[in-house]
Amino acid sequence: MPWELTEDDLAPIATGEAVLGTGGGGNPYLGLLRARQLAAQGARFLVIDPDELDADALVCSAGGMGAPVVSYEKLPQGEEEVEAVRALERHLGRRFDAIAPMEMGGSNSMVALVAGALLGIPVLDGDGMGRAFPELQMITYLIAGGAPWPAAIADEKGCRLVIDQVPDAHALERIARAATVELGGHVGLAMCVMDGAHARSTCVPRTLSLAKRIGEAVAGARARLDDPVEAVVTETGGRRLFSGKIVDVLRRTDGGFVRGTAVLESLAPERPGRLEVEFQNENLIARLEGETIAVVPDLITLVDAQTGDPITTELLRYGLRAEVIVMPPASQLTTPQALAVVGPRAFGYDLDYRPAIVES
Amino acid sequence: MPWELTEDDLAPIATGEAVLGTGGGGNPYLGLLRARQLAAQGARFLVIDPDELDADALVCSAGGMGAPVVSYEKLPQGEEEVEAVRALERHLGRRFDAIAPMEMGGSNSMVALVAGALLGIPVLDGDGMGRAFPELQMITYLIAGGAPWPAAIADEKGCRLVIDQVPDAHALERIARAATVELGGHVGLAMCVMDGAHARSTCVPRTLSLAKRIGEAVAGARARLDDPVEAVVTETGGRRLFSGKIVDVLRRTDGGFVRGTAVLESLAPERPGRLEVEFQNENLIARLEGETIAVVPDLITLVDAQTGDPITTELLRYGLRAEVIVMPPASQLTTPQALAVVGPRAFGYDLDYRPAIVES
Repeated sequence: MPWELTEDDLAPIATGEAVLGTGGGGNPYLGLLRARQLAAQGARFLVIDPDELDADALVCSAGGMGAPVVSYEKLPQGEEEVEAVRALERHLGRRFDAIAPMEMGGSNSMVALVAGALLGIPVLDGDGMGRAFPELQMITYLIAGGAPWPAAIADEKGCRLVIDQVPDAHALERIARAATVELGGHVGLAMCVMDGAHARSTCVPRTLSLAKRIGEAVAGARARLDDPVEAVVTETGGRRLFSGKIVDVLRRTDGGFVRGTAVLESLAPERPGRLEVEFQNENLIARLEGETIAVVPDLITLVDAQTGDPITTELLRYGLRAEVIVMPPASQLTTPQALAVVGPRAFGYDLDYRPAIVES
Repeated sequence: MPWELTEDDLAPIATGEAVLGTGGGGNPYLGLLRARQLAAQGARFLVIDPDELDADALVCSAGGMGAPVVSYEKLPQGEEEVEAVRALERHLGRRFDAIAPMEMGGSNSMVALVAGALLGIPVLDGDGMGRAFPELQMITYLIAGGAPWPAAIADEKGCRLVIDQVPDAHALERIARAATVELGGHVGLAMCVMDGAHARSTCVPRTLSLAKRIGEAVAGARARLDDPVEAVVTETGGRRLFSGKIVDVLRRTDGGFVRGTAVLESLAPERPGRLEVEFQNENLIARLEGETIAVVPDLITLVDAQTGDPITTELLRYGLRAEVIVMPPASQLTTPQALAVVGPRAFGYDLDYRPAIVES
């Protein structure tokens, strides 16, 4: 049976998603506002556990696509994703039974919840990345052999595209990205048409629940005047990488992505040092004094040192006091097959993946 | 009843189409080769007169989209257009009864014939421009109120896109162009889903027959050692604008278009002068010593001074001896409604349209 989120669940989920989102997936506050607005109008947010998803259910993944910074002006409404899902339904001549989130990210799984509420169908407690990634082929539903087509894109101006066939997931990414840029840099996307059995066996399970626990732990620590960063680390099995002040941000919006580098300097005289974090929508690599200390698919997230609030890549700015934390990726992301798609080399780094957190 | 083209009809049609194509629509020789290859394999090229098209027939327009120069490396096979038409058929759940050519142009109406032959359906003796234009909204089927969606794009690598909804024809152009560029710069396109009554009343009628007559007149003049340029002028109701040598070509492939300028200098000492022709895939404006003497939608075509063979914009090169001729546009292109879409201002020229040929 699907369970229902309460309005009080929304804020912690938004925080937890942004922690897992490694800097990407958009601004958690914007997604939260939209969800709260719908809740106030009586919308119901139904969530279904992967184990309870019917093997024959028709499922698709839905979320926003584009450079997160664009969504500050072009506020995602959730209707774009609904239009994209409806376009796929018309194309297939069938209705979907559930939405599987694409990724955990600032606003992107909140968007999936909004789309599910608007469509009146449950949203899977799980996602296709267990974090956020910038490109479409980097999704477990496809890495595990799902069909990269059909997919659909919709914007807020009445444009709808169905990507009817592509030779592979990279072609899907290229074509959808070109369309996204042409449509203003941010669109709703529906993809990964699959049955419940495929969604169940390939998703990163229960990440919505995990996001909720993370957000609640941060809020709890804050209320108790405890260290909220420690709460994040404990809840995610992560560890602190670095603490310091952001002293430089290089950032450009390019080809539908936000790319750049954030530079942090330690404020502790006894432990001086300089950390660089490079990102493409999401944080990809952290280098301490030039030495790589964490790399994708490890989850690298900056959080506000005082509040524990995650700092998404478009919010990076000079002067912020941040803690950089690293968290272990979902096991689905570290198979050789997955690392070929989401490992350091897939992002142009001449490095093998070495986990920053090794279980003892 | 549809009539059938013979193999001997193909070469004159290719020549005539390129004359009407005003420099655009691709290389006539490449389209001809493909049509001949199919003819040798027993394909039948059926043509239907607009008056004989059933009012209830389901018709769409099909052709190539992209920078013509790309088609030199990425040879259009006709299969791309067939795939695009098939994608529209699946999307609509209906089969098309006839193909209406998008434009007359170097290879583009030959491509329509090829697609019709491969699909086993007749091709309309008429087209949507009576010439070639670079952008999708510049087609009579849409100018006269046809729906700009759905449309479909296909490439030779197994990519297929259905543009399911757009707010207007300009959005169709933008989205399809972005997809075309991403897919390598040249694709097959199917658009303008309409009934036979709309195709009949909005097409520029019998341009395939006109192309055939032009091509036959050129070939005849050449065989008789007559002036083939005069044959073109006579057959089209056009006139000679300028005769000279191409002394400069500025050309760039940009955003899926070929844009640039050709400069010709007179070789006649008694009539010195310099003519500039600017183009965006197609020739748009001719200026003699800086003064505009012909402008879109007038048909401006360069032909080889010796052979009468049309010179498409990607074939322009230093040293060619060319005659520049101007021909009157179809009456559908000179209404106020049409001039807003295909007149000089639609191409960024601060000019009103003044016909270069005024009937006496």
